[in-house]
Amino acid sequence: MKEPKLFDTTLRDGTQGENVSLTVEDKLKIAKKLDEYGIDYIEGGWPGSNPKDEEFFKKVQNISFKNSEIVAFSSTKRYGIKAEDDPNILKLVSSGAKIVTIFAKSWDFHVSQALGISLDDNLKLIEDTITFLKREGLEVFFDAEHFFDGYNHNQQYAIKTLEVAQNSGASIAVLCDTNGGQTPSKIKEAIETVKEKIKIPLGIHAHNDSGFAVSNSLTAIEEGVEQIQGTVGGLGERCGNADLCIIIPNLKFKYGFKLPKINVEKTTSLYNYVTEVANLTPDNRKPYVGRSAFTHKGGVHVSAILKNPLTYEHISPEWVGNTRRILVSELSGKSNLKSKLEELGFDITQFSEEQFKKLTSKIKEYEHDGYQFEGADASLKLLVLREFFEYVPNFQVENFNILHYNFIEDTGTEAIVKLKINGETVHAVAEGDGPVNALDKALRKALEDFFPSLKNMKLIDYKVRVLDSTSGTAAKVRVLIETSDTDKTWTTVGVSTNIIQASWKALLDSVEYGLFVDNFLPVKEH
Amino acid sequence: MKEPKLFDTTLRDGTQGENVSLTVEDKLKIAKKLDEYGIDYIEGGWPGSNPKDEEFFKKVQNISFKNSEIVAFSSTKRYGIKAEDDPNILKLVSSGAKIVTIFAKSWDFHVSQALGISLDDNLKLIEDTITFLKREGLEVFFDAEHFFDGYNHNQQYAIKTLEVAQNSGASIAVLCDTNGGQTPSKIKEAIETVKEKIKIPLGIHAHNDSGFAVSNSLTAIEEGVEQIQGTVGGLGERCGNADLCIIIPNLKFKYGFKLPKINVEKTTSLYNYVTEVANLTPDNRKPYVGRSAFTHKGGVHVSAILKNPLTYEHISPEWVGNTRRILVSELSGKSNLKSKLEELGFDITQFSEEQFKKLTSKIKEYEHDGYQFEGADASLKLLVLREFFEYVPNFQVENFNILHYNFIEDTGTEAIVKLKINGETVHAVAEGDGPVNALDKALRKALEDFFPSLKNMKLIDYKVRVLDSTSGTAAKVRVLIETSDTDKTWTTVGVSTNIIQASWKALLDSVEYGLFVDNFLPVKEH
Repeated sequence: MKEPKLFDTTLRDGTQGENVSLTVEDKLKIAKKLDEYGIDYIEGGWPGSNPKDEEFFKKVQNISFKNSEIVAFSSTKRYGIKAEDDPNILKLVSSGAKIVTIFAKSWDFHVSQALGISLDDNLKLIEDTITFLKREGLEVFFDAEHFFDGYNHNQQYAIKTLEVAQNSGASIAVLCDTNGGQTPSKIKEAIETVKEKIKIPLGIHAHNDSGFAVSNSLTAIEEGVEQIQGTVGGLGERCGNADLCIIIPNLKFKYGFKLPKINVEKTTSLYNYVTEVANLTPDNRKPYVGRSAFTHKGGVHVSAILKNPLTYEHISPEWVGNTRRILVSELSGKSNLKSKLEELGFDITQFSEEQFKKLTSKIKEYEHDGYQFEGADASLKLLVLREFFEYVPNFQVENFNILHYNFIEDTGTEAIVKLKINGETVHAVAEGDGPVNALDKALRKALEDFFPSLKNMKLIDYKVRVLDSTSGTAAKVRVLIETSDTDKTWTTVGVSTNIIQASWKALLDSVEYGLFVDNFLPVKEH
Repeated sequence: MKEPKLFDTTLRDGTQGENVSLTVEDKLKIAKKLDEYGIDYIEGGWPGSNPKDEEFFKKVQNISFKNSEIVAFSSTKRYGIKAEDDPNILKLVSSGAKIVTIFAKSWDFHVSQALGISLDDNLKLIEDTITFLKREGLEVFFDAEHFFDGYNHNQQYAIKTLEVAQNSGASIAVLCDTNGGQTPSKIKEAIETVKEKIKIPLGIHAHNDSGFAVSNSLTAIEEGVEQIQGTVGGLGERCGNADLCIIIPNLKFKYGFKLPKINVEKTTSLYNYVTEVANLTPDNRKPYVGRSAFTHKGGVHVSAILKNPLTYEHISPEWVGNTRRILVSELSGKSNLKSKLEELGFDITQFSEEQFKKLTSKIKEYEHDGYQFEGADASLKLLVLREFFEYVPNFQVENFNILHYNFIEDTGTEAIVKLKINGETVHAVAEGDGPVNALDKALRKALEDFFPSLKNMKLIDYKVRVLDSTSGTAAKVRVLIETSDTDKTWTTVGVSTNIIQASWKALLDSVEYGLFVDNFLPVKEH
């Protein structure tokens, strides 16, 4: 078995999934993360199909990648015109990508049913498209759509499409189980036959409609396939694509591949990042990366785990950047907490065991209320300062009000804040795009004369997560705010059933952290 | 390959999953449903471990089952006492179950680490426990816990535990991948060896920690194993157990088994039922039974699906009781729109080509603004009515206002709405948990006297998605609201940079849809 290349199509096939919708900025952020993680190829989209993908390819050229190459995707040229006249194909050339994936039908049934052309004409589409793109200096990956269905139906023709791609200059033939209907034994059998006829390397692109996407991909690897296509978290059409967050740890820990570029210990963080950017609910039971993947509940299991984690864990959670959790146990978390406090710059020798206990139970209380400090270090730091240090910010909030009006002619939101700053009462009002933006502006207006460094602080991200959304408009919401100044970035969190109150808490934390925390942290620098 | 027996352990191993907690009544309801579905064995719980499971076994005796036998679960007897003196074992006898599952350690490491006894003493526990239960007239299934880890570590001992169980009278030896760490090739290799030594039938019990639970179970079937253990939806410890809702359709449609008792066309309803009773969020992407499993979004896919569903579906959704859905999104073309309109109840022959074009570009405009109609059919229907029909709702909004106050002593939000209903001006005010909840209440207060059916309409879900969250608090937000009345559920959407305005649009659509749409749809019924 050769070291396989990893091909991510979260930004293309992943976005075909229901409720998956990514902005150009989202896609760029995910591409950077995939590069950091060590993925070989990132399929960014289909530039000929929509202006958003076209814009992505334009902007992605300004990013320099350490590990990844960007790939553009398209069908073969349209029937009846030349490749060099097909705007779809021309957009591949102008996309700036050095590698393109061309997908074509390998299932005779699809050629007649979906394209409505002859089998030979379909071969000609493949030949002309690849030949043209090679002439333009591009590397071409060939995606044989529905390869396995085609193989089961008309083996000779399915293989013929691969041969044509090979002879036209494609550098790899990717066998796609587009409908996700194959079992591992069928995959094995088909690849064994293909290997006898095709000389260029093979790839695998599996879908999960029968629950075999991971298994089919790894069966293909056992058969010598050299590229695996998949998505982060298995996002994709219907039941999704093969999940790289499961496949990669399996390749490393079960099949013994080296994967030298991959930071496998960042797999959990990659999964959480993409889920968060795509605003999807994470799957807690997902192998390797789910929140429950190393969570122990049964009494028998927990007592054994405390003796030796190997008793009920197939790998160590740290290997994939996940953490062990033990439910109904006070023992969980203390060592996590200590290392977190050190990370935040506190000197943990200054804390007593009593204080650790108090802080642990305080955090549990907050988490029970819906807080999550995993992504909100700044709020956690403030919580510790408020509990254990003589922390008093240099201003106090007297009150604030929001006024939102909606008339046929006019709509708007105003916020009024009243603060006590150095003993002086300051009253400010501002208009904004919604209540939170108005509050942000009013707060700044009131504070800026006293704390000019506030001008360098910019809100760069604002997220709202409805917790227990089934309570409708009275549900609890969690607001995360990310802020940066000239040299750092920090995140704060607020929770309430009232979105204005939740946002206000996160906003205040954000400002307090930026203005005061450095002066109130009587601990060693980190 | 023999027709396999299906063994469900949702009520026992399933409840070990995080957030899974079932009352006795829940368990009885699920047992009845499993029987209707045609499962052979239902493992109800561990009567010796808690009073809830004991009560289940008492009550389940009053139910007569058509297809299923009830199984009670336990560890072997405790070390140092006789089986007939172990209260845990005696509760199996008094449970009323005719079949019991006894689990024991087959991994030498576990015997020493978790039990802390000698390897021979462990064999004696197995022998004594099974011999006693057989003497009491019970059938005994033997669960070899950690069998595969044991096999990899000390093959001879692992197989020895099976031999002892066989010789003591167990009717089946179930090989468990308790930690879920095995690959299909390891499973295959181990079973091939076991088959040479063990004469009683074998079973398989797989966990999903490496994403192979389904695959490992079916590999075992290919190797001649005769019983599959799993849970509905794959509920269970950590990443869960093998999912019977995926395995059963695979056995039937991919492996050609008859499964004469199984009502495979009720698989989706079984999954939804158990998810609902356990109060868990359904996994939309779950193979066969997920809401998105037969949902088509990409334009290429949709136009082919409309020609012939086989083009992008590996089986017909009806075979497992699921349904085909077609989404409207920027990735989609005209064919999506047409079938969507039909699904919404419109007669598409009444639309001109010009109107299709106009509507398509209208939808693209909305989507460019951040709208997404794939999950918001009701707003899409209203959009069509507003564009092409003489749709005027029976009330108009004059204006509304929100007042949010935050004083040290008190915090709250009030909404004031002014409507024109049948020519009459109605003014209402309400307090709520945040601006949206207050608006919802005020709107209902104003409308309920005129439209009493509003009382049956309930907001059941509220979601907020910040689009391009990097614009901070001035970012655009998309709000989705799900509403239900006595016989249907619908979803509406609103978008704005102002969260109050976005929520208001979705709220208004929700109310208008519920009150008026049925009267304004001059088209054939669907």
